[in-house]
Amino acid sequence: MSTELWYTERYDEHGAALSLRVTGVLHRENSPYQRIEILETEHFGTLMTLDGLVMLTDRDNFLYHEMMTHPALFAHPAPRRVLIIGGGDCGTLREVLRHPEVESAVQVELDERVTRVAERFFPELCSRNDDPRAHFHFTDGIAWVQEASAGSYDLIIVDSTDPVGPAAGLFSEDFYRACWRALGSQGILIAQSESPLFHAELIGQCQARMKAAAFDSVDTLFFPQFAYPSGWWSATLARKGIARDHFRAQDAEHLEDLQYYHAGMQQAAMVPPAFLRKSLSSL
Amino acid sequence: MSTELWYTERYDEHGAALSLRVTGVLHRENSPYQRIEILETEHFGTLMTLDGLVMLTDRDNFLYHEMMTHPALFAHPAPRRVLIIGGGDCGTLREVLRHPEVESAVQVELDERVTRVAERFFPELCSRNDDPRAHFHFTDGIAWVQEASAGSYDLIIVDSTDPVGPAAGLFSEDFYRACWRALGSQGILIAQSESPLFHAELIGQCQARMKAAAFDSVDTLFFPQFAYPSGWWSATLARKGIARDHFRAQDAEHLEDLQYYHAGMQQAAMVPPAFLRKSLSSL
Repeated sequence: MSTELWYTERYDEHGAALSLRVTGVLHRENSPYQRIEILETEHFGTLMTLDGLVMLTDRDNFLYHEMMTHPALFAHPAPRRVLIIGGGDCGTLREVLRHPEVESAVQVELDERVTRVAERFFPELCSRNDDPRAHFHFTDGIAWVQEASAGSYDLIIVDSTDPVGPAAGLFSEDFYRACWRALGSQGILIAQSESPLFHAELIGQCQARMKAAAFDSVDTLFFPQFAYPSGWWSATLARKGIARDHFRAQDAEHLEDLQYYHAGMQQAAMVPPAFLRKSLSSL
Repeated sequence: MSTELWYTERYDEHGAALSLRVTGVLHRENSPYQRIEILETEHFGTLMTLDGLVMLTDRDNFLYHEMMTHPALFAHPAPRRVLIIGGGDCGTLREVLRHPEVESAVQVELDERVTRVAERFFPELCSRNDDPRAHFHFTDGIAWVQEASAGSYDLIIVDSTDPVGPAAGLFSEDFYRACWRALGSQGILIAQSESPLFHAELIGQCQARMKAAAFDSVDTLFFPQFAYPSGWWSATLARKGIARDHFRAQDAEHLEDLQYYHAGMQQAAMVPPAFLRKSLSSL
């Protein structure tokens, strides 16, 4: 019997931990911003961690990346100009570029090394990086949105890490106000909003702050995500100048090659668990 | 710093593991059928394991128990006679007995010790065990169904462990045929059907076997369940003599005090992920 290697992420505040069996370490570096590590797991393919926390695995990242993109894109009547804040692994960008309506996808990631490492170890996620519609900027996303011309985007996707350190500002009402301003008369903001089981309070805060930032309506999407804390994740979507029930169903039915999302998921994913429905309905 | 204790369940075929931090061991015994252990966790309340595998925790069992019961009960026009196979912890029974239409709930669990231990360590789940509608039999569930009079139940709930050992027969076409026979002219069978991410093939098999056993229509329900492998779980529901879209929505809207299920969840939970939709639609 050979030595077993396990990667473990501890969710200390919840007295829980997730472990994945590892067959090797492929890459390790300290970027100017964080520790980036690439491990080969036995059953989940390649794993990227940032400062020791799971960023993604080959096997299950489709859940997160599909749900961070397609529901928002199909909720917008004409999503031509897309801005991605964070998203350095390029999985979100790949999903965005599946949409023929998109004319420009600007990705603003703080840490260029995350993208360079992803290009090497997650070539599938980066398979559309050469698309002429893709534009990369490696700088601070909050400043980018604050400095953007008013009305310059149709969709802003906040594909961030947890709300600590540099990412904390991405969960603030000020940032959401800046997003509202940067969106056109019809615009959508979607932001990852953590675990319904572990961070229910944060989801309520996201919704309340987006509404306070003048968005017309807000919904949270719920979906499984094995490799993130609690295995259950969320993204919160805010609309500006778009009806809550707007959905390009026909276009959604024609998008192929997805593993989780399909047109039938659009409304289903927005149904909150009872324990959140009570708190969110009082907003 | 004091010694840390962790309980770990390894999902060996998937090279993954879930751990919960433990503050103490409350109970350990070998029943005639299995090893039963009760641990106190730091953040998930009391934990019951059977042969070392998580059966339930205080904090997250509501997800499983609500989804094993309410969707099926509200899909039946008049669920008066309910049979629960397994379900020794009594959490499923408690949910069933929330329904005033239920006149009799028969629970057939192989291992009486599971129920006795649950009565001691999970008093909330057992809070309705004294309900005069509840009837307990500690014997083999497969034989019970085979020997039942034809048409003697309106709803059969298979709240089993994984499809290995004594529980394997609960996933067979023969057993589903026996359930069909034991159900009245209008009847529903619902069975826990493992993880969509880890056991997609099994879900397809459950659906195919239920259809082969003469049920009119079959749907799988999907829901998060942190403490079970992959954090994402399913239950598969088969209808006899009931339209696929039958749903007592008004009754569902009046059921209170639930944490996950509500009327809006009935259809939403039945929307499969794209990767399963393809395989299930070919059945």
